[in-house]
Amino acid sequence: MSRLTIALDAMGGDNAPQVVVRGANIARQRHPQVEFLLFGRKGEIAPLLSGMQRLRDVARIVHTDDVVRGDEKPSVALRSGRNSSMRLAINAVHEGAADGVVSAGNTGALMAMSKFVLKTLPGIDRPAIASFFPTLKGESVMLDLGANIYCNAKNLVDFAVLGTSFARTVLGQPEPSYGLLNVGSEEIKGHEALHEASAILREARFPGHFVGFVEGDDIAKGTVDVIVTDGFTGNVALKTAEGTAKLINEFVRRTFRSSLLAGIGYLLARPAMNKLRQRVDPRRYNGAVLTGLNGVAVKSHGGTDTIGFANAIDVAIDLLKHDFIAETRKACESMPRPFDNQAAAS
Amino acid sequence: MSRLTIALDAMGGDNAPQVVVRGANIARQRHPQVEFLLFGRKGEIAPLLSGMQRLRDVARIVHTDDVVRGDEKPSVALRSGRNSSMRLAINAVHEGAADGVVSAGNTGALMAMSKFVLKTLPGIDRPAIASFFPTLKGESVMLDLGANIYCNAKNLVDFAVLGTSFARTVLGQPEPSYGLLNVGSEEIKGHEALHEASAILREARFPGHFVGFVEGDDIAKGTVDVIVTDGFTGNVALKTAEGTAKLINEFVRRTFRSSLLAGIGYLLARPAMNKLRQRVDPRRYNGAVLTGLNGVAVKSHGGTDTIGFANAIDVAIDLLKHDFIAETRKACESMPRPFDNQAAAS
Repeated sequence: MSRLTIALDAMGGDNAPQVVVRGANIARQRHPQVEFLLFGRKGEIAPLLSGMQRLRDVARIVHTDDVVRGDEKPSVALRSGRNSSMRLAINAVHEGAADGVVSAGNTGALMAMSKFVLKTLPGIDRPAIASFFPTLKGESVMLDLGANIYCNAKNLVDFAVLGTSFARTVLGQPEPSYGLLNVGSEEIKGHEALHEASAILREARFPGHFVGFVEGDDIAKGTVDVIVTDGFTGNVALKTAEGTAKLINEFVRRTFRSSLLAGIGYLLARPAMNKLRQRVDPRRYNGAVLTGLNGVAVKSHGGTDTIGFANAIDVAIDLLKHDFIAETRKACESMPRPFDNQAAAS
Repeated sequence: MSRLTIALDAMGGDNAPQVVVRGANIARQRHPQVEFLLFGRKGEIAPLLSGMQRLRDVARIVHTDDVVRGDEKPSVALRSGRNSSMRLAINAVHEGAADGVVSAGNTGALMAMSKFVLKTLPGIDRPAIASFFPTLKGESVMLDLGANIYCNAKNLVDFAVLGTSFARTVLGQPEPSYGLLNVGSEEIKGHEALHEASAILREARFPGHFVGFVEGDDIAKGTVDVIVTDGFTGNVALKTAEGTAKLINEFVRRTFRSSLLAGIGYLLARPAMNKLRQRVDPRRYNGAVLTGLNGVAVKSHGGTDTIGFANAIDVAIDLLKHDFIAETRKACESMPRPFDNQAAAS
């Protein structure tokens, strides 16, 4: 495949620009065909690059002093951050200088700027944050993970189109199953928007298999390939799952330290336990996708390390290799359109 | 302490009346001062009791043929289930024949009937389902777990009063810390009702310490003693946590089976692992409390077994021993009252 260029917001995240530059260096080894544009303060980035000859060969620094703060309101960042490292990295995708952008910075600002600069795909009102995660059956996708606090039926239907497109292209599921996250599988339960969305999705024509409502425990079970939900619920579910995984891991750790025999048992099981640790390593699942945009944009966790940031770059490259945007655009064209009348009426 | 009588909906749950009767037999051993009223079909209950002489001495069957179905709409159950085992068990508490009621039946019906018969405590509009769960620091309480899909600020403030009262009496925390579950700790994020409730709770006078907003991962961390949320989010969070715990347990199980050394390691660590299994056993946390009612009502998981149902009975007895209703009534009297003006204005 042809060369790809990834724009990196070198100043985004808790440990920028170190983590970004070192992450790019790992990604460079994995993807010899990729080049990088590093947006940010040259005085801080250049010294980090000095010891990385190979990365220097495929990376170019685009200097800017301006940085979006982690606690900045999205609306403020949009107005006053026009020369920020985040904004210039997104602009590079819009202008064709880069194929995709990765940032570990302020999520709300990244979403607002990406929507403003890249625009949404035809028919999509609001982009959604999607990520894949481990399940009993393999891997599934969930969205929205926090971009949209209030969601109506149209948004949820859009997210179903975006999520199934993600599962088709990146997870390689030709007919992904998907469900709406609710509090009960009976039709009588849950928010009105969920029931309206469910009625529309039952008639939907885009590739995928709608199973109806699913519940919180279906997420880890892998009952469906794609979990569709509003950004409030999705964010709480994601963080609850992360917290619970850490809790159980800590309980297991304490268990192995609780007796001499258990400690010896741990030593014998250690190689296998290390494999498990890798399997559920949150860094492995770092890199959430801003779906619904007319361009590839990936959000890395702000507190991730070098390995995690390299994985977020992997996600962007994966989306590009699988033609995620073109495939999603096609799916949008076959999207259910019962909302057109509403829009015309309003 | 004086004798207690627990009314049991003997026909509620997936494996009724077997699980209910056998669960009562375990509870009877743990609590010699407790008597039981078993509501349901005598023809099914009596044969189960025949081999349990000691239970028969402290249990009385109150016959009724009528049973609330698991999939019955709460409104239908309320209208047409006046002679159901569930309803008669609740009536027994209202009439003073029993001190508390435990049911593994239809949650919505139990909530609707309990609210109708027992009424809510002064100032409480809607009861909430609360349960405790394991955390890194010990145990915490979360509510609402599914009774109220849509919640306004008043409901959330009520739940804070009810949840802290639960933590004070049953978990023995004199000044429980509590937080509102949200998607970010910054004031700019989340639903409007959360912000309104937060402003009121900052001025609140009831015993407890309000820490503001918490996120999904704070649940398992044990950041606060009480997590306050709407019933939709709480139900999704609870089930997501349960699903994730099962996933990690399964991953650990597979890890021990993945190599001979790991298998030997498991044998050595087994006694310690069994202790862990007991610690995170969902049956241990069975028994959700219908808080805000003028009476003790406990909901057991519908699919639980004998041990789980006995634990739900334990929860009811614990609430009675700790004078939960009287303590909660006192807390309600010191509840913030900024809503009175709204009520007067509307």
